[in-house]
Amino acid sequence: MAVGTLVLLRHGESVWNAQNLFTGWVDVPLSDKGVKEAERGGQLLRDAGILPDIVHTSLLRRAISTAHIALDGADRHWIPVRRDWRLNERHYGALQGKDKKQTLAEFGEEQFMLWRRSYDTPPPPIELGTEFSQDSDPRYAGIDVPRTECLKDVVARMLPYWDEAVVPDLRAGRTVLLAAHGNSLRALVKHLDGVSEEAIAGLNIPTGIPLRYDLDDDLRPTNPGGTYLDPGAAADAIKAVANQGR
Amino acid sequence: MAVGTLVLLRHGESVWNAQNLFTGWVDVPLSDKGVKEAERGGQLLRDAGILPDIVHTSLLRRAISTAHIALDGADRHWIPVRRDWRLNERHYGALQGKDKKQTLAEFGEEQFMLWRRSYDTPPPPIELGTEFSQDSDPRYAGIDVPRTECLKDVVARMLPYWDEAVVPDLRAGRTVLLAAHGNSLRALVKHLDGVSEEAIAGLNIPTGIPLRYDLDDDLRPTNPGGTYLDPGAAADAIKAVANQGR
Repeated sequence: MAVGTLVLLRHGESVWNAQNLFTGWVDVPLSDKGVKEAERGGQLLRDAGILPDIVHTSLLRRAISTAHIALDGADRHWIPVRRDWRLNERHYGALQGKDKKQTLAEFGEEQFMLWRRSYDTPPPPIELGTEFSQDSDPRYAGIDVPRTECLKDVVARMLPYWDEAVVPDLRAGRTVLLAAHGNSLRALVKHLDGVSEEAIAGLNIPTGIPLRYDLDDDLRPTNPGGTYLDPGAAADAIKAVANQGR
Repeated sequence: MAVGTLVLLRHGESVWNAQNLFTGWVDVPLSDKGVKEAERGGQLLRDAGILPDIVHTSLLRRAISTAHIALDGADRHWIPVRRDWRLNERHYGALQGKDKKQTLAEFGEEQFMLWRRSYDTPPPPIELGTEFSQDSDPRYAGIDVPRTECLKDVVARMLPYWDEAVVPDLRAGRTVLLAAHGNSLRALVKHLDGVSEEAIAGLNIPTGIPLRYDLDDDLRPTNPGGTYLDPGAAADAIKAVANQGR
């Protein structure tokens, strides 16, 4: 059986994206703009005739709502759903809840970009039991909740879920929608496209624009880098993301 | 292990409820009022401290959206989800898409109430391939899509799902939210409370008000009839439903 189609969808703008705060595992809702982005994502799926058979999401409401809204718009709201913490955004450690611009001013360009973009330097760990830590959140009962993560950490916890839960769906020929976050999707794209630790720093995935991957029998993309369902909007958005925090 | 708590939630008002049309398996969205009812349902769960561990829904968007909105409001949007056609509303046959008032005028009180309330008299079957039939709907691929159903038919297709999918969750001690429809929930309540075929005709379940059942080891309610999380609103709504189509 041919391997199914993979579609990545980064959640639309959240209220904290709009306020330029580091979010990570803090569970903030979509902004009104984010809702519209999710609706547009659904429209793009519908227009492209890409009909997901199953959806995988993180445990964070901005990804869960994005999936719900996009699938409702594509008339695929009824498909099976799986959720897992391993698709969560990168844990931003002690930066969670902090203003990006202030953080940049306080710590300087070099440290700021290291935390945001280096492959293996995590921000300082968050203090347990504080407002923006997740150590007592019931949804993570039984897991060793991180106190901070670098992208390398995200790759390490995301890939086992990919192998155990997503790959079997693809091997069964299903069209799989994966609704997740900037960094959990970057981690996956790094794996799929074999992006180097250096090059992944410069790779941004825009919000709300489905990114299709066609995979061969070895699960290697036959369209390296994937295909955005709205390439023009994706190019514009990638530029805008690169300027975040400025 | 003690049997978990069961919570039934009938979806909020749909746009066709608002227009007084027979809906059945036609997949219409919630009205604005229905969205508010779902939000209120989530608030009632939250206020009662009832935190679902898993949700089961039908394949129809009015139940799916109700579950999404209510769980988001109760901060339980991240729980596992299962969907199954056997929780769908009763198939209303050839009446689907028809105005309730017109149908009452055309066929008379006796026939109208027979179709709406008798246990074993289904409406005439819907013609295949027509606007409001579901014979080519991809979500029902592989199942023998009904052309009409009476409540007895709903009991017959719903109970196997209850036994196979819901009971194991309850036996595992989970709090189970079941977001479904007037008639699939009546079918379940008939089973749980041992309601007779005659008495079930007079039983209405209001929209958007969670109905809690506490179950003993034999899965019999220790609170027969269940407990509405807002008993006053439930009593008012039950009267209103009884007057539908008048």
